[in-house]
Amino acid sequence: MVLRLFSREETFFVLFNRAAENILQGGQMLQDFFDDYRDTDRRAEAIKAVEERGDEITHDVIDRLNRTFVTPFDRDDIYDLAKQLDNVLDWIEAAAARMVVYRIPRPTREAQEMAHVILHTCKAIVEAVGDLRALGRLDGPVREIHRLENLADRLQRDAVAALFADRNDPVDVIKWKDVYDTLEEATDQAEDVANVLESIRTKNL
Amino acid sequence: MVLRLFSREETFFVLFNRAAENILQGGQMLQDFFDDYRDTDRRAEAIKAVEERGDEITHDVIDRLNRTFVTPFDRDDIYDLAKQLDNVLDWIEAAAARMVVYRIPRPTREAQEMAHVILHTCKAIVEAVGDLRALGRLDGPVREIHRLENLADRLQRDAVAALFADRNDPVDVIKWKDVYDTLEEATDQAEDVANVLESIRTKNL
Amino acid sequence: MVLRLFSREETFFVLFNRAAENILQGGQMLQDFFDDYRDTDRRAEAIKAVEERGDEITHDVIDRLNRTFVTPFDRDDIYDLAKQLDNVLDWIEAAAARMVVYRIPRPTREAQEMAHVILHTCKAIVEAVGDLRALGRLDGPVREIHRLENLADRLQRDAVAALFADRNDPVDVIKWKDVYDTLEEATDQAEDVANVLESIRTKNL
Repeated sequence: MVLRLFSREETFFVLFNRAAENILQGGQMLQDFFDDYRDTDRRAEAIKAVEERGDEITHDVIDRLNRTFVTPFDRDDIYDLAKQLDNVLDWIEAAAARMVVYRIPRPTREAQEMAHVILHTCKAIVEAVGDLRALGRLDGPVREIHRLENLADRLQRDAVAALFADRNDPVDVIKWKDVYDTLEEATDQAEDVANVLESIRTKNL
Repeated sequence: MVLRLFSREETFFVLFNRAAENILQGGQMLQDFFDDYRDTDRRAEAIKAVEERGDEITHDVIDRLNRTFVTPFDRDDIYDLAKQLDNVLDWIEAAAARMVVYRIPRPTREAQEMAHVILHTCKAIVEAVGDLRALGRLDGPVREIHRLENLADRLQRDAVAALFADRNDPVDVIKWKDVYDTLEEATDQAEDVANVLESIRTKNL
Repeated sequence: MVLRLFSREETFFVLFNRAAENILQGGQMLQDFFDDYRDTDRRAEAIKAVEERGDEITHDVIDRLNRTFVTPFDRDDIYDLAKQLDNVLDWIEAAAARMVVYRIPRPTREAQEMAHVILHTCKAIVEAVGDLRALGRLDGPVREIHRLENLADRLQRDAVAALFADRNDPVDVIKWKDVYDTLEEATDQAEDVANVLESIRTKNL
């Protein structure tokens, strides 16, 4: 038991947990970004730094994978999980970046709500990845990630409906539609993390 | 022979056929939605209900997969096929939903044509999935799905060209471009079903 | 050694190299299209012809896969690589097609720069695919593809920022945003080629 803590298998779990915690930090920073919309350039940069740390963790996983002969589950599943965790942060970062690129003066309530849903999704990812060694318990967080993706989808539809109903300036419509799509995509990517985990479980009963 | 009808393998084929038939129903309802554009809120809701039934079928496949030790082909292929069939209906549902969200007063001829192509694609999916036990016959429906995706792609380009040539109101351009993209994405997702099936065949000669 | 040149394994490497060289030709034609923006209808058609040749190569790979029992690496990896190479050309072709469909009178400097980055990416793909038999050397071109994708991402953000800052006509904003997104997607698809190659390597140490 004690030995196992230092095994090579262990390292992958440690790295995946690090990736998940890093996503959670990005999700927290995104919520703060939308809730307290000041000093946006600097704070979008800070989220970018978290995203780049995510790239490094992904690189560490792949590097280790290429130097390890016995892995806790299929090599390509380890690869896919690392890449898919990476994608979530890419879209979290993109959402903040678009607000800055478009010089949007203030967030909408709908965007704030979507950022809250994303943070909850990140928490469910931490929980799901923490259950990697007990795949039987995966159901709870996976179901939660699906539920939150459905919620984000509904929020996005309502937000877009309001955007068009309010007869905004067309250029503002383009900007906001893109921001809402990007926020929703972050939860879609989280759902793909859940899918990779579910797929891993089907092979590791 | 008779025994085989009750085997566990059989169940996956039954479930995949159910998923395909459900997609076909969604495709038929989408064509009707565009051809007879009345009572759109209620009818988009009805397509949503079909999409949710699709979610349940997908869930049944995964649930069964987690309780079955001998499967007719690789476990992750079963998982991928179930998920990819699900995606087709997601985009069919999204197309109807966008028409409602954008409060579009009437469909264009181009959108109607694309909905017809989607229905044909759904029929080819039913045929392809029905051939799962005879993968040698897969070529016909797979080629048909690719042909229809190319056709949808051309229809979309023509539709978008017309949209811009007609110097429409910019907000209407945004709405219609999104509807056309969504309709085309439904056929892209169907092409990915064909890809999963082709990939399964490469491993099951 | 000499015998190996005629082995079945060889054929897949020959076909993948042909696919990569074909992508490179498409990338060269796209750069020329943007740099010397004349006779655009005919030249977009010529890029379409290259894309269709790519479809045929993909089809040849899959056809051969279905008639070959011993393959140099996993059957589904061969399938995925063929499909993913195909996707790169689809987006290269789409970028030229959009310029024509939108009747854009002249390219921007930013679009030209992105086309240059795409051509460099195509060169890195040729190199990476050429290293398929020596996966240890894959690192260089894979790193280059990631670097170029990051560069394209930054160019796109700057281009979109300029597009909105210049207070253009909303319809022109829609058109150009779509062209920039399409150019960037071509480098995203190239990154997915790199990912498939990396994933193959993890299984073939």
